[in-house]
Amino acid sequence: MKERIMTLEVKKISKAVIGRLPRYYRYLGELLENGVERISSHELSERMHVTASQIRQDLNNFGGFGQQGYGYNVEFLYLEIAKILGLDRQHNLIIIGAGNLGQAIANYPNFQKRGFVVRGLFDINPEIVGTFVNGIQVRGIEELEQYIEQEEIQIATLTIPKTNAVEIANRLIAAGIKAIWNFAHTDLSVPKGVVVENVHLSESLMRLSYRVSNTENWESSNAFEEQ
Amino acid sequence: MKERIMTLEVKKISKAVIGRLPRYYRYLGELLENGVERISSHELSERMHVTASQIRQDLNNFGGFGQQGYGYNVEFLYLEIAKILGLDRQHNLIIIGAGNLGQAIANYPNFQKRGFVVRGLFDINPEIVGTFVNGIQVRGIEELEQYIEQEEIQIATLTIPKTNAVEIANRLIAAGIKAIWNFAHTDLSVPKGVVVENVHLSESLMRLSYRVSNTENWESSNAFEEQ
Repeated sequence: MKERIMTLEVKKISKAVIGRLPRYYRYLGELLENGVERISSHELSERMHVTASQIRQDLNNFGGFGQQGYGYNVEFLYLEIAKILGLDRQHNLIIIGAGNLGQAIANYPNFQKRGFVVRGLFDINPEIVGTFVNGIQVRGIEELEQYIEQEEIQIATLTIPKTNAVEIANRLIAAGIKAIWNFAHTDLSVPKGVVVENVHLSESLMRLSYRVSNTENWESSNAFEEQ
Repeated sequence: MKERIMTLEVKKISKAVIGRLPRYYRYLGELLENGVERISSHELSERMHVTASQIRQDLNNFGGFGQQGYGYNVEFLYLEIAKILGLDRQHNLIIIGAGNLGQAIANYPNFQKRGFVVRGLFDINPEIVGTFVNGIQVRGIEELEQYIEQEEIQIATLTIPKTNAVEIANRLIAAGIKAIWNFAHTDLSVPKGVVVENVHLSESLMRLSYRVSNTENWESSNAFEEQ
């Protein structure tokens, strides 16, 4: 069977599509683990609870990997999406705030598997500084700038209360950080060229609270596409 | 100055609007803390980095709290949004999985302040069962069903690996849980009347990775509206 070679032509892709790619990546990874080599948009749509036409439209953004009556090559699509998401290279990451949430992230095995390598943890609490989390010794926040420069850190995770978040974010940016994964419950203003991805847990909990209080107003019980 | 009394008429509200309400709630809460009584859609738009017309459209969904040339009454709007989000009542919550992430949630002071009361923690690890987190003793998972029934628990937080998530979710639903805050990296199928809010941290990290790898393709550096 002849494999058609397709060139990857990245168009201007909407945020909504990008937002859905990690979920495609997860499902394709599970299919791969289960030894599935090919899948039709129809089958994938049944598993993912989205329409087959949405799947075709989404994946067409990347040059169209599917072939009529033949389906998608699972491994090829998985690897292409990995490239698009930047998962085909290593990202050096630090965590600011070595409390429960920072420790949870440092201990999460799947991040490393996907190329996100936690290189350092920082805290201001003298009781935490010097302790080890997943084999990494927690450093004092005064070492931040030097460490970022020396170790070529690209991504900083902010797992601190909102009080100090803006000040620390400014220090991170001045030190050359290109991306902030922000768990502090505040919005950060960053210059062009620096990206922020917010995870505001209490806002997620409020959406849940809304939905449990207004089940009848909600279109479906499971808001997959929100992720 | 005469206060106009407005009746709250809840229309069919889009997910996008609901998704933005917690952020309005946060900004209004900060304004209140700073003693601000009134704010125009224009001022609010500058603080929140969204257009004034978006703010007016969003808030009009709830019957329109603003008055031309007068602005919004911050406290009134704050309390109305709280009602809409179901934050005007207490929600009893349990956490399944008392690892770092479960502990982080149990220790988060703002959840309780907003009416989300962590009543119980559950784990399968005998080394964790019996220990205390924020004053709550961790119970064995075998006590789950009885506890949910006795304590009238509405919301369950799933902070466990995906391996057992589907099985535990089914037990929760059978025991009468109405909402699952799901941190397990898998999608849950739930019957009508049960809501799931997913927090897939690795998907958030992948979006960050995409954006740091494709900064030029991204429309703005800070994706506020994604939250």
